Amino acid sequence: MDLRRLLHPRGIAVFGGWQAAGVIRRCEEMGFAGPIWPVHPTRTEIEGRPAFRSVADLPETPDAAFIAVNRELSVEVVRELAARGAGGAVCYASGFKETGGRGEELQAALVAAAGDMPFFGPNCYGIINYLDGALLWFDQHGGKRCERGVAILTQSGNIALNLTMQRRGLPLAYVLTLGNQAKVGLATCLAALVDDPRVTAIGLHIEGIDDVAAFDAAGRKALAARKPVVVLKAGRSAAGAALTMSHTASLAGADEAMTALFARLGMARVNSIPVLLETLKLLHAGGALHGRDVVSLSCSGGEASLMADASEGRRLCFRGFDPDQTERVRTTLNELVTISNPLDYHTFIWAKPDQLRATFSAVMACGFDLSFLLLDLPRADRCDPADWYVSLDAWKDARDATGARTAILATLPECLPEHVAERLLADGIAPLAGMEEALAAAEAAADIGAAQARALPPPLLSAEAPAGEPVTLDEWEGKTLLARFGLAHPGGRCVPDAAAAVAAAEAMGYPVVVKAVGRTLAHKSELGAVALRLRNAAEVEAVARRMLALGEAILVEPMVQDGVAELLVGVIRDPQLGLCLVVGAGGIMVELLADRALLLLPTTEEAVREAISSLRTAPLLQGFRGRPAGDLDAAVAAVLAVARFAATYADRLVELDVNPLIVRPAGKGAVAADAFVRLVPGEPSP
Amino acid sequence: MDLRRLLHPRGIAVFGGWQAAGVIRRCEEMGFAGPIWPVHPTRTEIEGRPAFRSVADLPETPDAAFIAVNRELSVEVVRELAARGAGGAVCYASGFKETGGRGEELQAALVAAAGDMPFFGPNCYGIINYLDGALLWFDQHGGKRCERGVAILTQSGNIALNLTMQRRGLPLAYVLTLGNQAKVGLATCLAALVDDPRVTAIGLHIEGIDDVAAFDAAGRKALAARKPVVVLKAGRSAAGAALTMSHTASLAGADEAMTALFARLGMARVNSIPVLLETLKLLHAGGALHGRDVVSLSCSGGEASLMADASEGRRLCFRGFDPDQTERVRTTLNELVTISNPLDYHTFIWAKPDQLRATFSAVMACGFDLSFLLLDLPRADRCDPADWYVSLDAWKDARDATGARTAILATLPECLPEHVAERLLADGIAPLAGMEEALAAAEAAADIGAAQARALPPPLLSAEAPAGEPVTLDEWEGKTLLARFGLAHPGGRCVPDAAAAVAAAEAMGYPVVVKAVGRTLAHKSELGAVALRLRNAAEVEAVARRMLALGEAILVEPMVQDGVAELLVGVIRDPQLGLCLVVGAGGIMVELLADRALLLLPTTEEAVREAISSLRTAPLLQGFRGRPAGDLDAAVAAVLAVARFAATYADRLVELDVNPLIVRPAGKGAVAADAFVRLVPGEPSP
Repeated sequence: MDLRRLLHPRGIAVFGGWQAAGVIRRCEEMGFAGPIWPVHPTRTEIEGRPAFRSVADLPETPDAAFIAVNRELSVEVVRELAARGAGGAVCYASGFKETGGRGEELQAALVAAAGDMPFFGPNCYGIINYLDGALLWFDQHGGKRCERGVAILTQSGNIALNLTMQRRGLPLAYVLTLGNQAKVGLATCLAALVDDPRVTAIGLHIEGIDDVAAFDAAGRKALAARKPVVVLKAGRSAAGAALTMSHTASLAGADEAMTALFARLGMARVNSIPVLLETLKLLHAGGALHGRDVVSLSCSGGEASLMADASEGRRLCFRGFDPDQTERVRTTLNELVTISNPLDYHTFIWAKPDQLRATFSAVMACGFDLSFLLLDLPRADRCDPADWYVSLDAWKDARDATGARTAILATLPECLPEHVAERLLADGIAPLAGMEEALAAAEAAADIGAAQARALPPPLLSAEAPAGEPVTLDEWEGKTLLARFGLAHPGGRCVPDAAAAVAAAEAMGYPVVVKAVGRTLAHKSELGAVALRLRNAAEVEAVARRMLALGEAILVEPMVQDGVAELLVGVIRDPQLGLCLVVGAGGIMVELLADRALLLLPTTEEAVREAISSLRTAPLLQGFRGRPAGDLDAAVAAVLAVARFAATYADRLVELDVNPLIVRPAGKGAVAADAFVRLVPGEPSP
Repeated sequence: MDLRRLLHPRGIAVFGGWQAAGVIRRCEEMGFAGPIWPVHPTRTEIEGRPAFRSVADLPETPDAAFIAVNRELSVEVVRELAARGAGGAVCYASGFKETGGRGEELQAALVAAAGDMPFFGPNCYGIINYLDGALLWFDQHGGKRCERGVAILTQSGNIALNLTMQRRGLPLAYVLTLGNQAKVGLATCLAALVDDPRVTAIGLHIEGIDDVAAFDAAGRKALAARKPVVVLKAGRSAAGAALTMSHTASLAGADEAMTALFARLGMARVNSIPVLLETLKLLHAGGALHGRDVVSLSCSGGEASLMADASEGRRLCFRGFDPDQTERVRTTLNELVTISNPLDYHTFIWAKPDQLRATFSAVMACGFDLSFLLLDLPRADRCDPADWYVSLDAWKDARDATGARTAILATLPECLPEHVAERLLADGIAPLAGMEEALAAAEAAADIGAAQARALPPPLLSAEAPAGEPVTLDEWEGKTLLARFGLAHPGGRCVPDAAAAVAAAEAMGYPVVVKAVGRTLAHKSELGAVALRLRNAAEVEAVARRMLALGEAILVEPMVQDGVAELLVGVIRDPQLGLCLVVGAGGIMVELLADRALLLLPTTEEAVREAISSLRTAPLLQGFRGRPAGDLDAAVAAVLAVARFAATYADRLVELDVNPLIVRPAGKGAVAADAFVRLVPGEPSP
């Protein structure tokens, strides 16, 4: 679907009464250069422009139309526009799918009437193109024209309106509201914005994703084009509920799967509107960050401490200066100053341009990925900001001299006036408002940079759910099947009777584990179908007899005694996103602490390694407090084996759970102590 | 120390050159009503006021003085002022204790020269009293006069300056910078501000606390007077380092002990400057919150979702409406609206005063502790905000009709203009900027309210470290001693040889635990001095023989097999705050996850219960996923037993560690499986 004519039209037609008049005024205020044609059945002029009776009467074919007539009439107008070959439309009327009943029918009629013609809505508040002054938007707004800027896509008209009111110096290229997405959806818009070279970064405020495959494709296109995307997705609090749920399938709420999707596509997920705006501003100023090394300068120790505190727990590194760098920075400063990062350079050089420039340049030359200057400007209505401008000018000079990537950070947003922010941004310096927001923005920009440096992810596996009645494999079937893909198990034997169990145990050596095996034994521990640490033939024989009564066969395995950590490796099927790989802390911790990470398929070794390392229990694998380090490579290989299996069985797998995967000391491997596999039978056979 | 004359002086003397002139100008600008006397050795006038040669020449005794002469002269001026009976001074000069050497001597001389006269500094940027227009402050600032307001105390002159630049409608009564605190310290200031009825709430930005006992007393005074205190303390990131440390003593960094102190005193600890300001604003508007039930209204579903997400994990409850309330709210709205909390009331009633008032009143009548209206005002330079004012007026009317506690919340700080914020605040409606900040503020105000509803805490135990060489008690000594205070242990016996060990085991029944006992056996597990799950006499005998070689005696205990959860209960001695009780997850989890809470002594049952419940592993005690619930009462009693012991041995205890405390199923108690006690010998004897 081609949105080019609709997004930057030459001529615009407007339909309806006061909303149509509003669109005309908005376009005029913003200096839209093309013709605007009101269409009205009875009026002869609207906003001083001659009105036309119908689409057929229009002097030219419009590239874009704003349709603010009732829902039934909207269908007819769309039909006429499509017939005339218009470039697209915005359908403002509500009362369609969102109300159900008759509205659903009308929405289908609207889509049919449009044919190939794209349209936003229905139930769409409007779309704004500040680049060309083309506003299919009747309401007030707070934005202005720009030549390059960020695009914002939102499902909320009210939030779109509020975002235009920002006074942060952020140039808005587009503000698009989506409405019901009957024809033009999120993915189509996203892909269109990637194509506009005047768009520097894209912000999405979304509640959900209708078409995951299309979104995946658009996201991959954005990533390939190095067009940064920031996402504020509503519904993250639903994830908290997952803590209380009862098995892997419910551990991973859809929101977590969305997080995995965004991460996979190199989109930065943020949690608030201010962080969305600050991140877009930082990206607009110079794209993604190439790394996570940051430095901050302030003339106050109080601010330096706040910065250190605020950075805790973020994926940013306030690395120290090396001895040479320390020396070079020190020579620019009073001997009382301690050279550290964050750097408090004191007020000795306040309002002294040469000295400020020297210090700033010395720090900027140290190879950080981003340099922050903490500076809150005074309120100009009561104070004279001249001395503060000295710092800003020195900062710019130093930036020009070093080519460093930099930002000005005001701890209070109101202490970075709009005109100052605009000037800084025009100079390529990011003006950031709020310490928490600025650090979140830097983290997001670094995450995007890291994603850009990786290989493009392959398209997602199809999310098609398997057709047919699934069966649960017994533990031995599951382990045997997964072993073909490279997942190790303890090396037991499945035997038919107690005598064979004793023979097997004697052959493998004690202690052993004895379990009942059967397709109905999904919760073996609760059924008493697992006996650990059996130490002699008598114990094995007694237990094996009991187990036979519970299942169809007996599994005898060597007891793994040198586990360093236990992981859970699961696969669940998200209704929207398809197969998800879950890596978590084993045993009860995954549920108690929600200590898990989720990956979509296909995945990569790097992503698996990162997922395991992100667990709160990951330090156990690194040799925690004198314990041996775990075999991380084997754990990664085990997870990749499960991922390969899942990809191969993608159209049949319903659910899979390896819990625990026992990670042994480095070099000794990782083994699946249990395996639960549920799939639809078929070819290839398990 | 009485700061009344210094903080609100009748007459002010200023010493020095341009800074003294600045102070005169600042006072004049703010309409200070009293006399201002410049003192200068050579000049005859400063800022148009006749200058006096010396303190002795002054026509009256000044209540306050701003001294901006060099460090040596400052000592002389202070001496003369004290001799004349002045009310106090601000010493601006630096080069005292903060530089060491000669500066330290001069600071001591300054203190001696002052005698009983209070002074701020030295190395103090100044103090501002906006209530009376008395500014001992030479620099620019952004504040203005007010009749009631909040007081801010900070150790950073630069942050003080920035805070005066806020445009959030927050009336500042005092902004005080502390400098070196040679004479007037944090606690003295805090106590003085509590006494001023024009101060509605107090904000502290501090890096540390010099005199903990005085701070404790001032904090208790503030709490008793229901004067809310909010603290932004630098240095919280040091706490993160504790994760990597190796035993209880280093688990609890000093910052965590500070957090415990603030919580004990009912002070809300916040983590950023914007949250400090927003919390003070909410407190100024109506004091602490009486509960945690909040409701939010917005005309946009997008904003309602953001609010739900932002509230996740906070100690606030967006409780639903009950059926009657739902009905009453529903009758005011279109039938398409779903009545939930957060409430999206849609735009059907936008700009309709009567309908807005009806909906707002219906919601406010539902007994919430705080009602938020989400509203971002448009930028007035490009839009007409008239329709938004309709909502604000309806909100105020509804508030007047219901008497509810309310706030207006703008998601973007810049969308709540200063003049609107000031008007709202004058009406007793809190104008809050930023969703995250507003929710953090509500949480803080509710925390303060909860503390005000509790009994006043007793004074802290003295932090005096014990004198003398400590010894480590052996496990049996430790358990026996703690048992006298009510801490249960498994009920074992300490025996001298293997035969007695077997007899003891036979008497108590298998399985048993056998340990070596001795004062040098602090790390028994690593030394192989613990054997679990021994099942017969032969095993006990063999193990007991081995243990005798390691220690002085043998401890035989029944093996506790029905533990539901394991806790750690420790006591450490913070160099500043004295004895701290640590409650954490038992075993490795306390270290891996930093899952612990810290309490200062003496403590209460309520505080202990809250500390245990705050642990991430606490759900284990509540019957996690079908497991039996733990004996929470017994766990609380065990922690209180340790607390009683610590208080009794306060002047001798160095360190204590009960790990694990095994919590058995409800009704079955909690037993100390191990106990490590280190103390200085003396009376009473262990």
